Amino acid sequence: MRTRPLKVALLGCGVVGSEVARIMTTHADDLAQRIGAPVELAGVAVRRPAKVREGIPAELVTTDATALVKRGDIDVVVEVIGGIEPARSLITAAFEHGASVVSANKALLAQDGAALHAVAEEHGRDLYYEAAVAGAIPLIRPLRESLAGDKVNRVLGIVNGTTNFILDKMDSTGAGYQEALDEATALGYAEADPTADVEGFDAAAKAAILAGIAFHTRVRLDDVYREGMAEVTAADFRSAKEMGCTIKLLAICERAADGGSVTARVHPAMIPLSHPLASVRGAYNAVFVESDASGQLMFYGPGAGGSPTASAVLGDLVAVCRNRLNGATGPGESAYAALPVSPMGEVVTRYHISLDVADKPGVLAQVATVFAEHGVSIDTVRQQGKDGEASLVVVTHRASDASLSGTVEALRKLDTVRGVASIMRVEGE
Amino acid sequence: MRTRPLKVALLGCGVVGSEVARIMTTHADDLAQRIGAPVELAGVAVRRPAKVREGIPAELVTTDATALVKRGDIDVVVEVIGGIEPARSLITAAFEHGASVVSANKALLAQDGAALHAVAEEHGRDLYYEAAVAGAIPLIRPLRESLAGDKVNRVLGIVNGTTNFILDKMDSTGAGYQEALDEATALGYAEADPTADVEGFDAAAKAAILAGIAFHTRVRLDDVYREGMAEVTAADFRSAKEMGCTIKLLAICERAADGGSVTARVHPAMIPLSHPLASVRGAYNAVFVESDASGQLMFYGPGAGGSPTASAVLGDLVAVCRNRLNGATGPGESAYAALPVSPMGEVVTRYHISLDVADKPGVLAQVATVFAEHGVSIDTVRQQGKDGEASLVVVTHRASDASLSGTVEALRKLDTVRGVASIMRVEGE
Repeated sequence: MRTRPLKVALLGCGVVGSEVARIMTTHADDLAQRIGAPVELAGVAVRRPAKVREGIPAELVTTDATALVKRGDIDVVVEVIGGIEPARSLITAAFEHGASVVSANKALLAQDGAALHAVAEEHGRDLYYEAAVAGAIPLIRPLRESLAGDKVNRVLGIVNGTTNFILDKMDSTGAGYQEALDEATALGYAEADPTADVEGFDAAAKAAILAGIAFHTRVRLDDVYREGMAEVTAADFRSAKEMGCTIKLLAICERAADGGSVTARVHPAMIPLSHPLASVRGAYNAVFVESDASGQLMFYGPGAGGSPTASAVLGDLVAVCRNRLNGATGPGESAYAALPVSPMGEVVTRYHISLDVADKPGVLAQVATVFAEHGVSIDTVRQQGKDGEASLVVVTHRASDASLSGTVEALRKLDTVRGVASIMRVEGE
Repeated sequence: MRTRPLKVALLGCGVVGSEVARIMTTHADDLAQRIGAPVELAGVAVRRPAKVREGIPAELVTTDATALVKRGDIDVVVEVIGGIEPARSLITAAFEHGASVVSANKALLAQDGAALHAVAEEHGRDLYYEAAVAGAIPLIRPLRESLAGDKVNRVLGIVNGTTNFILDKMDSTGAGYQEALDEATALGYAEADPTADVEGFDAAAKAAILAGIAFHTRVRLDDVYREGMAEVTAADFRSAKEMGCTIKLLAICERAADGGSVTARVHPAMIPLSHPLASVRGAYNAVFVESDASGQLMFYGPGAGGSPTASAVLGDLVAVCRNRLNGATGPGESAYAALPVSPMGEVVTRYHISLDVADKPGVLAQVATVFAEHGVSIDTVRQQGKDGEASLVVVTHRASDASLSGTVEALRKLDTVRGVASIMRVEGE
C-alpha cells in the first residue's frame, strides 16, 4: 500500500460535510485499505470559521475556498456547498489545478453537467456525483455502469423525501396540504422555504441527471417538465382511493415508443396501491428502472440526510482515489445518443379528470363528445349528483398530453361544465 | 474512439450465453460508444457444435474452450458454463494468457474466489461477476463500490427465485411443498433436479459471495450455514399467518454486535408481512443492505433468466473493456478485514417453536422451565388442546442458536412433549 496520503479538500461543512469529515477520520484505516493509500483531510472551506466543529482541527479550516482548491497539491475536492455559484467556479478551478471532484450538487449538475464534464475530461480528472440523486441509494453507478450493456427505457421514481413525507401524511391522515407541510417543517423534513421541494425543482434536477445518464443524452433542468404538489388536495386523495390508487410526486424519464426521443417530467400522479412505489413511506426514496434485458429493477432507501448522503460521497471518494492511484479515470459523460428531448405535449399517459357540471340530462353526452373530438378515449366515467350540481369523474385511456390539454380547454368552454376540479395523471400501470 | 476491436471469447452458449451474443451483435454500436472501442465476438465455446445458433457465425463456434482461451489475442473471456470444472481451469488459463474475465459462476466464486482473484491480480487482469448473484440486480458493484466508504452490518435477502416461487405459491394457495414444487417444475421455474435450489446450495453460494464483499473478509461456501426448504409445510404457513408473518428462504450475512466476527446463513424464516421482503412475489429477488451511514437500502428485480443475467454480464463486460483501454483494473478482492466467520451456534435471532404436548396441567410450567434453564427468554406462548393432545406454540426473544438447540434437545427428553412439530427462525423485525 502506498504510504503517501491522497489529499482531500472539503468544500462545505454542514450536515453532509461534517459527516464526511467524521467518517474520514473514524474510518481512516478502512478507507486506506479500500483505496490502497491513506486519505488525508487537507482543508475544509466554510463560511463561518468561528463555529466549533468537533473532530476537525482548527488549522484545516479556511474561509478561502478558492485558495484551497488552487493549492495544487489537492487530489480530490469534495463539494457539498450546493447551489450554482461559487460551486461551479470552485469545481472548475479544482479540475484546472489537477484535482478530481466528488459533488452532491444536483442543481449545478442538472444545469451545467456537460460543461463540467468537459473540463474534467480536458484535465484527465473524474467528476462523480452519486450523492446528487436520492442520497445513499446507488443509482448513478448502477445506471452508468451496471446497465452499461443494456437499453434503459424508463426511470420512474420518488426522488424527493420532503414531498413524499407530505403526501404520505395526507394519504394516511386525510390532512390537507398546508397541515401536512406544517408538520413536515416542524419535524425538520421541510426547509423554512420549501419551494425547491414542493414546486418540484429538486426532483426535476434529479430527473435531468437520471435521464441524461439513462439515455446517453444531454438533458438539462430546462428540458424537464415540472409541476409542483401544492395543489394536491385531500379530495384528490379520496378520488385516488376510489380508484385503488395513492398520489406520489414522481420523476419520470421515458424513451418514446419509437426510441427516437426522450422525455423527462416531474408531477404529482396517481399510482395503483399494488405498485411498489405506492408503499414508499415517509421521507424514503425509491426508483424503478426498466430496461430491455434486465426488466424492472427497483432501488430503495433513505433519499436524504447527512449520513446517507455522506455514504454516497465517500463511495465516490474511494472510487476517485482508486482511479488516481491507477492513473485512470472512470466513465465520464456519455451523451453520444444525443436524442431529442420532446416537450410535455408529446408525453403519452392516462388521466383522471374531475369536473363540476350541471346536474341535467345530456351533460355526459356533451362531455364525451369533447373527449372524442380530441382523440382522447374514455376508460371509465362516474357521475355523482345532488341539488342541481353534479361531479363527473373521467378516467381516460392513454393519450398525449397535448390532446388532453386541448380536451380540457374545450371542456372549460361548455356552459354545462362549471369548473375543472382537478386533473391528475395516472402512472405505473 | 479506438477502431481496433477488443476481442471477446464466450464460454457457453445456453440461455445466458446466447443472449449475451445476441445483445453484443444487435447493440454493437451502443457498446462501442460506451466502451470507447468496438467489441468483437472472437469465439464461442460450446459442447454441441452442431446445434444451430441464430446470429452466431458457424466459424466462431468451437468445442475446444481451452484452445480458445489460450489463443493469446483474447481481451475478455465471458464464462457462463457454470460448475467448478472445467470453468476454473479455463478462467485460470484466461488470466495466464492475458485476458480479463467476466463470470456468472456463483458456485465457483463461492468456493475458489480468493484463488481466482489472486491469479487475476498476478496477471494484472479483472475478474468481475455481477451476474453470479441475483441476476440483473446490481448488488456486487453497489456493495463493492457505492458502499466502499460505509460499514455494512447486514445483508438480508431473497436470492433464489425458484424457492421464492414455491414459497409464494404455498403462501397464496395453501398448497403443500410438493404440489408447489411440481408447479414450479411444470412452469420451468425449477429444474428437473431442484436440489441446488431447494436445499439452499445456490443461495448459500450467493451468501458467501455477498458476505465476502460486504465484510471485506473471505467467506467460502463451507462457512455458510445452510438449511433447505423441503420441510416447510402448509401448517408452518398457517402458523406464520397467525403471527402476521410469511415464510421466505433468506440469505443472511451479519456482522456480530461487537463487530469482531461475521456469520452467513441460508434457511427458511418467518418475516413480518410489513417487511418489504414479505411482498416479493414469484421468482423475483430482493436484497436489503444495512450500513452505518446509509441506513437501509433495498435492491429488487428479476434474479434469474437469460436476459436479466445477460444484462449483468454485459455491464461487467463494458467495465472490464474500459479498464483494458485505460490500462487499469477495477477493485479486486478486498479481504483485509479478515474477520473470523462464526459458526451457526453463535447466531442470535428469535424462534417460533411448535410442540405437540400432552394435554394436562403442568406441561407449560415444565416447558417454560426448560427454556429458562437454557437462558432462552419466552416472548409469547399459545396453547391449543383437544382430545388429550395439545399443541404449544412458543415464540422466543433473541437467543443464540446454540442455546435454542440445547433447549430443543432438552424438550425432546420431556415425556410430556410428544414431538417438536417445527422450529423456525423469525427475522426482519
